Amino acid sequence: MIPFLTPLHAEELRGQNIPEPWSFGMADRVRFGEIDMLGHVNNAAYLRWFENLRIHYFNAYGVHNYDESIPKIVLRNMSLDFKAEVKLNDVYVLTGRTTEMRQSSFTMQYGVFVGGKLTTAGDAVIVMLNADNSKRSLPDALRQRFIDRDGAVQV
Amino acid sequence: MIPFLTPLHAEELRGQNIPEPWSFGMADRVRFGEIDMLGHVNNAAYLRWFENLRIHYFNAYGVHNYDESIPKIVLRNMSLDFKAEVKLNDVYVLTGRTTEMRQSSFTMQYGVFVGGKLTTAGDAVIVMLNADNSKRSLPDALRQRFIDRDGAVQV
Amino acid sequence: MIPFLTPLHAEELRGQNIPEPWSFGMADRVRFGEIDMLGHVNNAAYLRWFENLRIHYFNAYGVHNYDESIPKIVLRNMSLDFKAEVKLNDVYVLTGRTTEMRQSSFTMQYGVFVGGKLTTAGDAVIVMLNADNSKRSLPDALRQRFIDRDGAVQV
Amino acid sequence: MIPFLTPLHAEELRGQNIPEPWSFGMADRVRFGEIDMLGHVNNAAYLRWFENLRIHYFNAYGVHNYDESIPKIVLRNMSLDFKAEVKLNDVYVLTGRTTEMRQSSFTMQYGVFVGGKLTTAGDAVIVMLNADNSKRSLPDALRQRFIDRDGAVQV
Repeated sequence: MIPFLTPLHAEELRGQNIPEPWSFGMADRVRFGEIDMLGHVNNAAYLRWFENLRIHYFNAYGVHNYDESIPKIVLRNMSLDFKAEVKLNDVYVLTGRTTEMRQSSFTMQYGVFVGGKLTTAGDAVIVMLNADNSKRSLPDALRQRFIDRDGAVQV
Repeated sequence: MIPFLTPLHAEELRGQNIPEPWSFGMADRVRFGEIDMLGHVNNAAYLRWFENLRIHYFNAYGVHNYDESIPKIVLRNMSLDFKAEVKLNDVYVLTGRTTEMRQSSFTMQYGVFVGGKLTTAGDAVIVMLNADNSKRSLPDALRQRFIDRDGAVQV
Repeated sequence: MIPFLTPLHAEELRGQNIPEPWSFGMADRVRFGEIDMLGHVNNAAYLRWFENLRIHYFNAYGVHNYDESIPKIVLRNMSLDFKAEVKLNDVYVLTGRTTEMRQSSFTMQYGVFVGGKLTTAGDAVIVMLNADNSKRSLPDALRQRFIDRDGAVQV
Repeated sequence: MIPFLTPLHAEELRGQNIPEPWSFGMADRVRFGEIDMLGHVNNAAYLRWFENLRIHYFNAYGVHNYDESIPKIVLRNMSLDFKAEVKLNDVYVLTGRTTEMRQSSFTMQYGVFVGGKLTTAGDAVIVMLNADNSKRSLPDALRQRFIDRDGAVQV
């Protein structure tokens, strides 16, 4: 059985029929309160799921830890693409990876897999700021980690 | 028509068929995302409603403003009594009043009225603490306000 | 003062410094439970806001009412663009309009205005389905309403 | 390590330092979106947690399955007692048991344990109704299960 609420890496994801290049994920289960009166997972729930995943991902990649001062991490935009229904009690695996890097921002892609099938896709542009809200360059070591683990490209 | 999201006082509440001794309230409307898959307002939504009301009530009664240092206000316990259903798009009036005062805590009662009918009742014990989490006496001026406006009693 | 939770039309929106071509909106206020631990409106809250607006918009435009059988209305995708912060107790006006129509789907744009300033933009593609999940053409009368009220274009 | 989101029985609970007579539980972890702007778990989150637990408990005890017609299960009232703080990323174990049975209702108690310490207690009165909302007697086999597993008493 897949462990819930715990970072999953490439091998474990392959064991759940989640294809390359996804190499970071987390399993969870749809809760009663996430289902709306039409019987669907509420749209807003997906953003909470990606938010949960992002926190685990940021910890695992040490996004906050490369410099002495802690950066502010801000979501600039976000999109969601609904491909198939997710239902009450479904076990799902969230996946996340960084695909593109710019001077002070990076793009993440997200997926929601149920039984190995992609039901929902998302992406987000995330910006690093200094305490005064000025833009902050991504640390080189973080760039390298995004490249090594996720196959991110500089654009 | 009743104004939404705005403190309502005794006269306005009487105009909505909400009986004495309620003298503070706020109108709102049930939202889609508050309805669960069984078609009911989710239990958790009621706590959010009372939380919203409490913020307006604390502002109106100046709960934070009687002393130089700002007190910590902590919810110690809470109960909810479900009397009748509340449905999607229902306009409801939340009511709140302080009924009992002790050395450093007070009891509030809450109501949810739809069309003048009490559908949900609640109460909460709220404690005032200092920054170091030691108990803090209720200021006399606040006690007097609870007595004058809400008919609160010292116990 | 602007009325909350009530459909607002072009004149009222202009009175709130919300520019053309927006012609449908609704005012609301940020609640305590919508603020996350970093002090920002939670991302998921915006989707709930647009969901609330959409329900009022669909009612006002009669989206469900043009044919004998009620269509299924499904969100296909959704994006959010965060431009400026929204804070606790801010009064905001949500706006929505249909910009593009296809055979069985339409694109809506959304805005969140605080003090006449656009803080958050969004869009969504919405599909009409029959009970058996086959695609369903938009009724001509609905197309005409989208054109007349919102300046929607056929693509 | 304790498995998340999966029913836990007496032995597993004892292994987590959760005392008798609790014999049913489920582990979970505090999420970012459950923390409010003051850094606490939002009150409403606790009701969602108990709701999640209840669904697993009802399945495990077969609450819906004793008669041919499915009963309506309605929450009549609910209380929460906050004893200690729960923080972001805390792993917690929810516990639930039926303590009292009446003709057509039963009382459940709930707990939230962090590191073997009870942080939050709750209880609820739950009523069984027929489709026409008339009261419905608890099936004898369900009573027996509440007695055998939870030590429930008839009152």
